[in-house]
This record gives sequence, structure tokens and C-alpha cells, in this order.
Amino acid sequence: GTEADNDLYINQAVVFIEDAIQYRSINHRVDSKSLWLYRWYYSRTCQWILSLTITIILALAFTEKPSSLTVTSDVRYRLPAWNPPCGLTESIELLCFLVFMVDVSVKSYLVGWEEFWKNKWLMAYILTLIVSLTDWIVSLSFFCAEDVRIRRILRPFFLLQNSSMMKKTLKSINSTLPEMASVVLLLAVHLSLFTMFAMLLFARTKDGQQDKEWVAYFRNLPDSLTSLLVLLTTANNPDVMIPAYSKNRAYSIFFILFTVLGNLFLMNLLTAIIYNQFRGYLLKSVQSSLFRRRLGIRAAFEVLSSLKETPANAQQSYVSVGALLQVLQKVEMDSRCKQAIMRSLKTWSCDQLSAAQFQKLFEELDKDAIKQHPPSPEYQSRFMQKMQFAFGHPYFGYLGNIVALANIVSICVVLVMDADKQPSERDDFFLGAINCFFIPYYLLEMLLKILAMGLKRYLSYPSNRFDGLLTVILLVLEIATFAVYGFPHPGWRPEFMGLLSLWDMVRLVNMLIVFRFLRIIPNMKFMALVVTTLLDLVKNLRAFAGILVVVFYAFAITGIMLFKGAVIILIFIFLFQTSFYIKKVVVLSFKEKCDFMAAFGHFQAEVIYCLLCLLSVNLICRWAKIYFVAWWLISSVIWVNLFVALLLENFIHKWDRRCHREPLSDIEYQRTVELMFRDVLEEPTEEELMEKLHQHPHLQLCR
Amino acid sequence: GTEADNDLYINQAVVFIEDAIQYRSINHRVDSKSLWLYRWYYSRTCQWILSLTITIILALAFTEKPSSLTVTSDVRYRLPAWNPPCGLTESIELLCFLVFMVDVSVKSYLVGWEEFWKNKWLMAYILTLIVSLTDWIVSLSFFCAEDVRIRRILRPFFLLQNSSMMKKTLKSINSTLPEMASVVLLLAVHLSLFTMFAMLLFARTKDGQQDKEWVAYFRNLPDSLTSLLVLLTTANNPDVMIPAYSKNRAYSIFFILFTVLGNLFLMNLLTAIIYNQFRGYLLKSVQSSLFRRRLGIRAAFEVLSSLKETPANAQQSYVSVGALLQVLQKVEMDSRCKQAIMRSLKTWSCDQLSAAQFQKLFEELDKDAIKQHPPSPEYQSRFMQKMQFAFGHPYFGYLGNIVALANIVSICVVLVMDADKQPSERDDFFLGAINCFFIPYYLLEMLLKILAMGLKRYLSYPSNRFDGLLTVILLVLEIATFAVYGFPHPGWRPEFMGLLSLWDMVRLVNMLIVFRFLRIIPNMKFMALVVTTLLDLVKNLRAFAGILVVVFYAFAITGIMLFKGAVIILIFIFLFQTSFYIKKVVVLSFKEKCDFMAAFGHFQAEVIYCLLCLLSVNLICRWAKIYFVAWWLISSVIWVNLFVALLLENFIHKWDRRCHREPLSDIEYQRTVELMFRDVLEEPTEEELMEKLHQHPHLQLCR
Repeated sequence: GTEADNDLYINQAVVFIEDAIQYRSINHRVDSKSLWLYRWYYSRTCQWILSLTITIILALAFTEKPSSLTVTSDVRYRLPAWNPPCGLTESIELLCFLVFMVDVSVKSYLVGWEEFWKNKWLMAYILTLIVSLTDWIVSLSFFCAEDVRIRRILRPFFLLQNSSMMKKTLKSINSTLPEMASVVLLLAVHLSLFTMFAMLLFARTKDGQQDKEWVAYFRNLPDSLTSLLVLLTTANNPDVMIPAYSKNRAYSIFFILFTVLGNLFLMNLLTAIIYNQFRGYLLKSVQSSLFRRRLGIRAAFEVLSSLKETPANAQQSYVSVGALLQVLQKVEMDSRCKQAIMRSLKTWSCDQLSAAQFQKLFEELDKDAIKQHPPSPEYQSRFMQKMQFAFGHPYFGYLGNIVALANIVSICVVLVMDADKQPSERDDFFLGAINCFFIPYYLLEMLLKILAMGLKRYLSYPSNRFDGLLTVILLVLEIATFAVYGFPHPGWRPEFMGLLSLWDMVRLVNMLIVFRFLRIIPNMKFMALVVTTLLDLVKNLRAFAGILVVVFYAFAITGIMLFKGAVIILIFIFLFQTSFYIKKVVVLSFKEKCDFMAAFGHFQAEVIYCLLCLLSVNLICRWAKIYFVAWWLISSVIWVNLFVALLLENFIHKWDRRCHREPLSDIEYQRTVELMFRDVLEEPTEEELMEKLHQHPHLQLCR
Repeated sequence: GTEADNDLYINQAVVFIEDAIQYRSINHRVDSKSLWLYRWYYSRTCQWILSLTITIILALAFTEKPSSLTVTSDVRYRLPAWNPPCGLTESIELLCFLVFMVDVSVKSYLVGWEEFWKNKWLMAYILTLIVSLTDWIVSLSFFCAEDVRIRRILRPFFLLQNSSMMKKTLKSINSTLPEMASVVLLLAVHLSLFTMFAMLLFARTKDGQQDKEWVAYFRNLPDSLTSLLVLLTTANNPDVMIPAYSKNRAYSIFFILFTVLGNLFLMNLLTAIIYNQFRGYLLKSVQSSLFRRRLGIRAAFEVLSSLKETPANAQQSYVSVGALLQVLQKVEMDSRCKQAIMRSLKTWSCDQLSAAQFQKLFEELDKDAIKQHPPSPEYQSRFMQKMQFAFGHPYFGYLGNIVALANIVSICVVLVMDADKQPSERDDFFLGAINCFFIPYYLLEMLLKILAMGLKRYLSYPSNRFDGLLTVILLVLEIATFAVYGFPHPGWRPEFMGLLSLWDMVRLVNMLIVFRFLRIIPNMKFMALVVTTLLDLVKNLRAFAGILVVVFYAFAITGIMLFKGAVIILIFIFLFQTSFYIKKVVVLSFKEKCDFMAAFGHFQAEVIYCLLCLLSVNLICRWAKIYFVAWWLISSVIWVNLFVALLLENFIHKWDRRCHREPLSDIEYQRTVELMFRDVLEEPTEEELMEKLHQHPHLQLCR
């Protein structure tokens, strides 16, 4: 019946518009039941459950057997970690797998049979699930006593497949791989030629005194190769050349040449290549998002235009305003946008909308969300008006900054004075007394600002919210201190009471004061620019960070499997995120002499490695080398360069724009990546949109 | 008289054209005598003498008193360096100063009085000379026993002022300074806030076991600051956090946050800023060179056009072909270009040249020097033709590469086998026998290629020259080996004879073979691209390298003056060019505990620092800190980032062009920076040129 048809069309339009808002693909089934399923699947609850499941399955590694989530990392003091009984984590895992199975079946059903065969990600998803389940059954049949658990390495895949941004980024990284591989090959050639040169140069001599370099670093091929590889990470930089250098200064030429060629040229070449490949990456990704949005809107228009019997002789298709209003009421979207569209619809003179008008209506979605701060209260009395003028003036804010600076300086002075005092000599009076002055000032400043601006306007500025929250916390801490330890006086050195000692309380308060000093950031132009760039970067980096987590997780689990003895390794590797850290660990992993007792007092990482070496045969040490070199390549070389490339891209774009746009006083733009590029984006043409629509596997358009 | 006038005009034109060729400014005196002086000053001999003087005065530091140019760097074995008598280096210095005085007077005279007062470089030059001479007199009057020699620090200025490229680059760096300073300020804020946080976090506790972190790294404000500053250089990366980390893993958050913010964000922000500033740098500098060239040519045209009595009613000025020929004969320029211009002048139909035609004629200067390889010889006999085809074919070259690879692999195998053998057990037969096969093959390959291509064509390829030269050297070495030690046979272990032992000979031959393997580079497309980029970069980096030398020299001399005891420091600091090296030295300079005897056997740099600390008071150690931090900032942070920026610029430009231009088989372009940018350069307009010409301080144009 036409009624049912109309309902279907309305529902289709609703889903298409929601797709457009979320930048989703519209290539899914469009019959009534599928639409209901689709909206259910993309509802907040469902997506939230899915995310939770992924988090849970990833977090399982922290409680599973070879883990070490303890407070201290020192093996001497560490308590044994909690060891869950067999079947506990496994049953949680099974629950997660069930959720994933539902997820994959709904997804596969929604894209349709034909699309399913083209979609490699879905196939990989199913494959991963099958392998994981098989491994799970094997695991249970061995009563959790088996060593190799493949399904753990596969876990990060669930995170990967759930994010379209990450999939896109991965594709982009993938296309850079051939050129990266060329540079890595070049590095390998560089390394091997220099290794041969070094072996010929620092050969064993008849005089035992003369061949220190040979003994220490170039004893055989693997030694030479690792010596130079570590030199490439700059970790053993001067040490490796000192024996030869002290024999003859000219030997340093070899090492300088190697470092300049390898580190300065080839490593930076990698940066250049990755930057060159990623220059257009952000723009391209935003462009394709825009296309998806326009396509969704256009699809909604097309289904709505076939809703009512339009005159057959009409050249153009039209949509009635009423139908659109009906659709809009059903669409889940930002209420501000919805209201704006409704408003412009209601002032519409004509009853019908052409495709262009329809599209234009939804451009509201692309617009900057202009955030208008609420107005200040209007006071009647002259005195209040003067107060308002005085405390609403920027100079009052600057005064607050100066006071905060004075506070920091005074803390600094006290710290320097107290630096070498014994804890028993220490007098907490100074810091306490200082806080007695500053914290009330902060409170006063906050109250006066609220008086001048009104509470709503005050809270609408993020810097004020930051400021106010910290002030309230400081006040609470201060009152708690006074309540427990009394007012400060000279020789104020009370005994330990309550949850924290006075000294800890004072330290906490001071740390918060140091933190509060960050409120000066928006007042300094360059700093503000840098901070906004960094925040933008963090937004754009989410996909990269996700991929890093995936790689990192796989590495950590592989590490656990490789070095069975090393129970601390998972958490330890977490530290590698700094990526510079790895250098040292690589060096450590190459020091094959393990002096257990000496190492113990000296350096924790060494301890771990020595444990590794003691517990396992030499073969493991070699595996450790390969493992760490691979991790160094991925985290330190490739990921850091990707990061630099993105930072360059973001920063240069921002810097260029800074000159074009003058800052508006009272309006803040909530900028998204999409908006940042709006000037350079190309609108998709009518033909492109219609061609894409006609390729839709499930939607049959009338014309 | 007109005759004298005509001569003057001709000479002016000659000098202007020479200015254009060398991209020099034309703002100098243009009367007859000055022109003679100008040409004399810019003659090759004069410029060569000036360069030699600069080299000599810079090299003096190696022989002056606190220097240590010895073979070994080990203070135990080192012979005392030669100490020149007082007055020797000083008299050489005086000679150099005399040359500089002549240089500065000629330069000042040539630019003219008015220009002189505007030229800050010249004034600084004179000031430097005055200070240096005063210091020299003081030095002699103390019989070379004085400590502080300011003139040594000023020496690199002579290098700086003599290169227009370096002055330009310095100006460019100077304009980037404000933004770099912002980031450095940001870094300082970051550092100081985190230092305060750390001092509050890792405070002294009552339990002596718990405050290891405080004892080791955060004892007082300077300690905390340096601990975190060194963490910024990643030199003490895991060590600094291990005591806290082993107490509670959560402490690592502090260090990770610090490293991520400081190292990943702020440091890379510096790269982004410098890259952003330098993006247009090369283009701008090439553009201004082009303007100078066009201006010189135009000035030559203008003076030549006023040479003959042209009809007064002529709208345009013309230059006669005869006058230009006369000028060209006097001009010193590349003979290829001169002949090309002469040729096109002789085929000129008209007797007169307009300004545009004149300019067009000299565009020959901008053209790529197309290098046509000489043709192969044409043989009559069919056999020879077949030979020529076979050995001139690229496959024959590939065969040569494969043989070279086989040689490398065989050397590698022998090295691995011999790795752990005692020198007395070692048998040189294998390597000798291998060389007996490969070196004759290389000789044969060279001869066959010469046969196929003819000697001239063979030598016209750089790769063949490289190949041939190495083959000849290898052959000579091999013959010498056989002559001295006889033919190889099993158990070939002769006694030491002649200049080198057999083992050294064999090693030298094998090193050359490894080096010869680089001939494969032009055969691999990506490698060739990388290598040409690197070569381009080296060309463009000359100015930067010069500035680095200037800064480095000043630092080294300051170092000598600051640490009087440390005699090795000058050469030692040379090693800092690797710029990663400094990290370690900074760390060392912060380790204030000096265990003299332990350090002695361990590590040379430490020895130096301990010497420093022992010989001087603690104050010097603090100076050393500041000194090393300043050097780290300049060499490692700023210079490396400048390098990365230039590399990015060069590489991206090259990469973009690679797609546009297909490689031509037999034509090689000798590319200069100017040519690389030719597509994007803007030609200066007629008006700009004429305006600039009318501003010339010495040239009075008729119209």
C-alpha cells in the first residue's frame, strides 16, 4: 500500500540523514526491517556495549596469568600478583566473543550478501573469531595450562575493525610502506657495508693491547652488526668509538661518517618521505567525509521526492516541506542544528524544496557552532556598575595572573630554602602561612568575577571553569588542613593525623597551585596557538594512537609468550610509549654478560633482562634482539615520524590561517577538523552524487 | 674625449656582465680606475689569496698553545704537542691582518662613501680588525703569556663576512629567531613547572629508604632542573625514573607526561616552526640571485646603448652587435656559454639589439649544461661489432654488479670464518686466492668496456671513472702484494716485509672492494634519487655548514679559554658535529662526582671532565654546564632542525619533479639550485629593473 510505502520512504530518509550526520556510508539494506535493525545497531546503547566489550577483552591481559599489575616494580618487594582460577577469564572471554558474533552477523546482514564478499574487513573479522574460538576450546581442554595462546595476539583486531578512522589511516600507512621499505633497505645496505668495513678496519691484531675495539665491539659479524645498529639509535654513541679513538684520532672519521650518513641523512629522509606522503592525508580524509555527508543528504532527498505523486511532467523532482518536517522529527541529531533547520523551514515561502535547496538547508550541519557567551547581569546601582567594570576588566585577570606567579615564586623560594633540611628540622609554617594569604585571594577573585560576569557567563569560559574548580578544591583542602592540624604558627610541626600527613597536604595544595598557574595560557598569544594546535593534533591523532595501541598490544603479548620467565614485561613495555626508552632497552638486551648481583642494585631493566638470560637459553636472547629491533623500528622510527608529519601538517595549516583571520572578541569557534579545511574542500558535483546513488546495491531509484 | 668615454662604457659593460654571471651586486664605483681595481679584486688570484688567508688564520688554533693535535687521544701515551715559540704564530697572524686590512679598504672604497655607512657588515669588519689588532699588541707586550685572547673568538667572523651566501642565510635564520625563542620560552616554562612539581613530588621523607629518587636526582633546585633538562635530551631516560618507578609504578606517569610534552610535542614543534619559516627560503634566495643577474645584464645594456650616438628620435635604445662582440671578448666567462652567445650573435640578421633581445641572448647562462657523451667508435669488422654490442649492453654492467656482489659475499664469508681465529692461526690464502680471480675480472671488464665504448665515452660517465680508478688501484696493490710476498698458496703466511704487512695489504684491498660496490647506486632508481637529493643538499648546505663552523670555532675557543686545564677540548669538540654526541657529554658534565682512577680506564670524555673538575673550582663546573647546554641548544636542537627543514624542502621538491620529467637516456643535466627552481621563478619586470638601476649610487644613466 502507498501508506506503507510512504512510511518506508520516510524511514529511509531518516536513516540517510543520520548517516550523513555521522559521515557513515549509505550502502546498507533499506527495507523496513533492516532499517529498524540498522538504527538499533547504531543506537548509542548498542555501540556503547560494543565499545565496552572491546575494552573488557583488551583489559583481560592485566589479570591473566603472566601479568604483573602490582604497585612496585621491584622484584624484591613485589607481592605475587592475583592469579584468577582457570575458567574465570575464559568465561568472560566467551561472553565477549558472543557479542562479537552478534556484531559481525548484524553487520554482514546489513551490508548484504554481495557487498559482504567484497568486504575484506568483515571476512577477516569472521576468520579472527573462528580462530579465537578454536583457540579458546583448545585452551579449556588443556585446563588453561597451554603455553601458546594465539587468540591473545589477535585481540587488538577487534579494536581495529570497529573504527573506520583507524581503518582509513591504516590504508594510508599501507600506501606509504613501499617507500618506507626503500629507505629501510637503504639503511640495511648502509649498515651492512659499514659493518664489513668495520670488521676489516678493526681486525684482531697480534698485539693484544691494540685490539680493544675488536674485543669490545667488533668480535664477529653479529657483534659488529649490533654495535653499528645501536650506534644508529645513538644509544652507545661515544662509547663505541672510544677505544679506537684513543688509539688514533683518525678512526673517529669512520664513526662520524656512519652517524652523519645514517642518522642525519637516512633517518631524516624517512621523515621527509612520510611527511611527503601524509601531506594530503588529512585533506583527503576530510574530503571523503564531506562526500559521504552530501551523498546521504542527496539520498534522503531522492527517496523523499518519490514519496508523493509529483506531476509526471515535472522536469525536476521536489520534496514537500511537510514530509521533511516529519522526517526531521524522527531524526536523532544535535538539537541546535535541528532547531535551526526547523526555523528556516518554517520561514520558507514555497511548499516545495528542490535538490539544491534541500542540500542548502542541511549546510547548517557544516557550520561552526558559534558559542555566544551569556550576557553579564545589568546592575541598577552605580556602585555595582563600577564594581562590574572594575572586576570584569581584563586587567583584573592580569592581576590574578601576577598573584599566581607570585605564589609560584614564593613556593619556589621555600623549596630552595628547605632543600637540604632534614625532615625533622623542616618547618611547615612558611608554606602554610603563604597559602593562608593566597587561597583566600583566589576565592575572592572567583567571587568578584562571578559578581561582575554573572554565574552563567563566568562558567561559559573554559579558563574560568578550570580556575574555579581548582580554587574550590584548594579551599576544601585548606579547610580540611586547618580542621585537622589547626592554624599555622611558627614551629608548626604536628604529628601525623588522618588520611594524609600535614606535609603531604601542603605538598598536594602546592602542586595544585603549580597546576593552576596554567591559567595564563590563553593570555599569551603564541602559547594559545601552540596549545590549540596540540589539542587539534590530539584529535587527529586518535586513529594513530589506536593503531599504536593495537601494535603495542600485539607486541606485549608476543613478548610475554617469547620470554616466559619475564613476568613484568607487559607493564614494562607500556613505558616504551615514550619511544626513546627503547634505545636503552635495546642496548641492555645486547649486553649479553649478565652479572646478576651487580645488576640487581643498579638498574631495574637490566634485572629483567638478566632474569631473561638466566631463565632461558641463549637462543631467547637472540629472539629478544630481533623483537626489540622490530619494536624500535615501529615505535621509534616509523611512529615518531608519522607523528612529526602530522604535527607539521597541522601546524603549518594553522599558522597559515592565523594571518587570515582576526580573532573575534566574544565569539569562540568550536572548530573541528572538517571546519578547518572548509575553504579548500571541493563540493561534490551533482553527477558524482547521482552516479554513486545509482550504484547503491539496495536502493532502487525511480529515475 | 669620446674615445675614452667609449672605452669606459665598454669596461663598465664588461664588469656588469661579469657581475651578472657571478650573481654579484652592481652597486659599486664605475669610473675607469675603480673598474680596474674591481676586476683585480674579484680576479681569481686575489680571491684565492683571501680564502687562503682566512684558512690560515682559522688553522692557527691547531698549533697555538692550548691545543693537542696528536695522533692518540689517550693522555697516558700522548706525546706533548709541539709548542711554537712566542712570536711565530703572532707574526703569521699579523700578515693575515694586513691582508684583511687591504681587503676591507678595497671593499670600502669600491662601494663608495655613502654606501659604506649603510653597510653594517663592513663596519663590523673594521671593528673586528681594530679589536683584533689591539688584542695582538696586548698579547705581544705580555710576551704571549696572557690568558684571555679575545681575537681568537673573533676569528670566524672573517670567514663569515667573506661569503654572501652565509650572510644571507644568517639573515634568514635571524628572522626565524623570534619564533624559535617563543618555543624555547615555552620549553623553559615547561621545564620549570615540571621541576617544581618534581620537587614537591619527590621530597625528602623521614624514611631514608624511600627517598632514593630525591637523593639521586632531585636534591635541590639546580639538581632537579638539570635532571629534567637531561631527560629532555633523552640521555638519562630510563635511569632517572627507575628509583621512583620501583617504589610505585604510578610515578612513571610524571616522567612519561614530561617526555611526551617536551620531547614529542615541543621539540617537534620547533622542527615545524623552522620548516615553516624555511619553506620559501631556497626559492627566495634563488629569486634574488635571478634578479641580480637580470639587473647586471640590463645595466650592461644601458651603458652600451649610450655608447654610440643613436638617432635622437629613436623611441627605444639599441646596442650594436659590434660593441657587444667587443665586450664579450673581454668578459671572463665559461667558454661554452661565450661560444654559444657568439654563434647566435653571428647569425643575427639585424645590426642592432633591443633590450629584450639583449636579455634573451644572455639566457644562455641560465640553461642546463647538457652533457653529450662522445659517440662510440664505429668498427668495420663484424666480429668487433658483435663484441661492441655484447659488452656495451647494460646486461654486461649488471653482470659486473653481480660479480661485485659475489666478491662482497665471499669476503663476508671469510670474515665470519676467520672471526675467532688467533692472528697466528690465520691463513691469508683464501682472501688472496679470491682476489686473484676477482681483480682480473674487474680489469677485463674495464678493458672490454673501453673497447666497446671507446676511451672518451667510457671516461665521460662518472660511474665508469669511479670504477676504473678503483680497478687500477686494486691492480697496483695486487701486483705490489705479489711482488713482495709472492703468489698465494695454502699456508701463505709470510713475514712482515716492506711498508705494510700482507694482512694489512689484503685488508686494504678488501676495503676498496667494499667501496667499489657503491657502483650499483646508479642502477637502483630509488637509491639514485636519494643520492642525488643528498648531493643537492650538500650543495645547499654549504652556507649552513659554514655558519656551523663559525659557531663551532667560537665555542671551541671559548671552551679552551674557560677550561684552561683541558688541552684536548678543541679536537674533542670537533666530534660534537655528530650533535648526538653532546648528549652524553652533557650528562657527563653533570656527574659531579669524579672518581679519577676509575674513570681513567673507562672513558676518555669522563677523563677530560674529571680533569676539568680536579683542575678547577666548582664554579668552572657550573660554567661547563651552561656552556654545554648552550652548545646542545645550538648544535643539536637548532642546527639539526634547520637541517631537517632543508632536507624536507629539497626532497619534496625533487620528489614532485620526479613525476614530471622522464629520464633521458643519454643526456645528463648538470643541475644547479637555480635550475631546479626555474619553473617557479618569476622574471623581474622592466620597471623593477629600471627603478633599481636609477637607484644606483654611482651610475648616471642618460635617460
